[in-house]
Amino acid sequence: MKITTHTEHFTNPLYLESGRILEPYELTYETYGELNEDKSNVIVVCHALTGSHHAAGHYEDDRKAGWWDTMIGSQKSIDTDRFFVICVNVIGSCFGSTGPMSPKYPSSAPYRMKFPVITISDMVKAQRILFDRLGIHKAHAIIGGSMGGMQALCFAIEHPNFAKQHILLASTYATQPWAIAFNKVAREAVIRDPDFQNGLYDPEVIKENGLSGLSTGRMCGYISYLSPDSMDEKFGRDYVQTDGLYELFGRFQVERYLDYNGLNFVNWFDPLSFLYITKAINIFDASRNYDSLEDSLSRINSEITLISFASDLLFLPKEMQTIYDTLCNLGREKETHYLEIESTYGHDAFLVEIDKFAHYVQKALEEK
Amino acid sequence: MKITTHTEHFTNPLYLESGRILEPYELTYETYGELNEDKSNVIVVCHALTGSHHAAGHYEDDRKAGWWDTMIGSQKSIDTDRFFVICVNVIGSCFGSTGPMSPKYPSSAPYRMKFPVITISDMVKAQRILFDRLGIHKAHAIIGGSMGGMQALCFAIEHPNFAKQHILLASTYATQPWAIAFNKVAREAVIRDPDFQNGLYDPEVIKENGLSGLSTGRMCGYISYLSPDSMDEKFGRDYVQTDGLYELFGRFQVERYLDYNGLNFVNWFDPLSFLYITKAINIFDASRNYDSLEDSLSRINSEITLISFASDLLFLPKEMQTIYDTLCNLGREKETHYLEIESTYGHDAFLVEIDKFAHYVQKALEEK
Repeated sequence: MKITTHTEHFTNPLYLESGRILEPYELTYETYGELNEDKSNVIVVCHALTGSHHAAGHYEDDRKAGWWDTMIGSQKSIDTDRFFVICVNVIGSCFGSTGPMSPKYPSSAPYRMKFPVITISDMVKAQRILFDRLGIHKAHAIIGGSMGGMQALCFAIEHPNFAKQHILLASTYATQPWAIAFNKVAREAVIRDPDFQNGLYDPEVIKENGLSGLSTGRMCGYISYLSPDSMDEKFGRDYVQTDGLYELFGRFQVERYLDYNGLNFVNWFDPLSFLYITKAINIFDASRNYDSLEDSLSRINSEITLISFASDLLFLPKEMQTIYDTLCNLGREKETHYLEIESTYGHDAFLVEIDKFAHYVQKALEEK
Repeated sequence: MKITTHTEHFTNPLYLESGRILEPYELTYETYGELNEDKSNVIVVCHALTGSHHAAGHYEDDRKAGWWDTMIGSQKSIDTDRFFVICVNVIGSCFGSTGPMSPKYPSSAPYRMKFPVITISDMVKAQRILFDRLGIHKAHAIIGGSMGGMQALCFAIEHPNFAKQHILLASTYATQPWAIAFNKVAREAVIRDPDFQNGLYDPEVIKENGLSGLSTGRMCGYISYLSPDSMDEKFGRDYVQTDGLYELFGRFQVERYLDYNGLNFVNWFDPLSFLYITKAINIFDASRNYDSLEDSLSRINSEITLISFASDLLFLPKEMQTIYDTLCNLGREKETHYLEIESTYGHDAFLVEIDKFAHYVQKALEEK
């Protein structure tokens, strides 16, 4: 599959929800498939906290495929033979789009903590501006899981005539305190690491040694992405064979797994982007600029498909159910679809248990 | 209520499960009520990870009562007019009993990381030796929540003729990977704090400034003690009024709560004790030295009351149910009682929702 990676530069200011301005800024994105003549085959895929625009396919010499490669491709659920798929790295992230480590114009020094706080709404607004530049003024569908689902919901509310269909997986209408608490621990672990240097860390040092606190933070995130059952199935009480049971730092397999993922994470993710994006997630509330959730969801003018996972402990099924119930109360039961997928996999299910929901996505994408 | 706090010194070696020896050692304990003439009114209360022997009553000039004061006292569920209640600080802890910061005889320097790994079984064994010295050779009941429940279960299996009744709350037969993962993050936060100094931290410095990593670790623990529902009820999405929504470090109330508890914790708990006791919890498995859980539970010769809490996400009700089912399969359904308490409070329910289970405990303590 052909992957096209681009970065677009924007010189007009991006007016942010906070009242601040981002100017200039860049957006990096990737596309798969071909845009048809009447530009009616666009599917926007929105990524999660640590995701990127690289949603599918393999780069040359890269063993690892894009983060939703199982979903996107020729003959797959999001069929690139038919659809033109576009995935944009969100502002605030660290994979090409403007983020806290981007130069603060006209200086060449990075923003760091002078970067403005970004909201989900800002991420969506920036994408919309990019699509305008690309001559894309409508989409067949917008789809995303976790923070990607927040973006999809935000598109549906704030740009109601842009896409015909919005598909949210493992997401919410507003981040609840339980999820905020996980982010809190992760954020504290980052901030309290002396190498973080109050945001003035040396990127080269970080790249070489990794930021230990970010690693601990990621471990905390991993708990919230899994579930008691998935950990039982994956690890049980298996102990690392070479570690002694009575060694103070002897490890269970679940600990080794967290070690591995924590260590690995710091090689490819930036600590400040982590702080800014978790902030955006924490303050996400689809009703913030409206009288109520009902008021905000009443702006929606499209089909909405909500897919939750029974064991998701980060964004609970009942949160997705609230969106469904509210839309039904607004008389939109015909255009709204709610599915709770049986799964023990926790929040991560939207990334790994594709088989369980791929056909629902495919069906939702069919022309109505 | 009269509180009697004592410390007993033991010069004989304590043979530990690991094969190592603790010698000499001390045990600090507290009692409430009066021992009757035939010493038949003893109730042993076992404390949790960060608990202590101070289970009930107020010290002079102390606003805060013991950790289970709502349960223990005159006319309370564990009635000190009738029972002689004893609570022992576990070895490895930091409230008087020998732990990693105790002097390593004959030196006056602390053990630190040379302290042996302690198991729940070791904690129980030490208590049993203390009781022997006090002339107490039987107990009416042994009761504990969380790690205290592990001790109660261990008493029942390894000292089957000591107590007539064992009551476990919010506990398990073996710590599952989900709980180990929470401990992992907390432990990493401690170890990675440069002030921890690989265990060679200066206790005075720690006492004055607190160990930041221990604070982060405690926050992670707090997530596991609560539940999504209890956080919703307690905090919702309330924001700290003086914090700006678009400030990168502006806080939700749930974050302030975690900040407060994290900060507070480091003033009264020792980082090495935290590592040793979480280690003991992680490796707790009632079946370790037996062929199977069935084999280990078949040693039990007493009434067992199991009280779990519906929303407990640290030790899930199904883990307590496993103990119940196994005992029933062993033909002990008449002597075994299982109760799942409706609660949204999470693991902490055993400390705070006393009203919901106090009468069950009282009933279990009635003479059969």
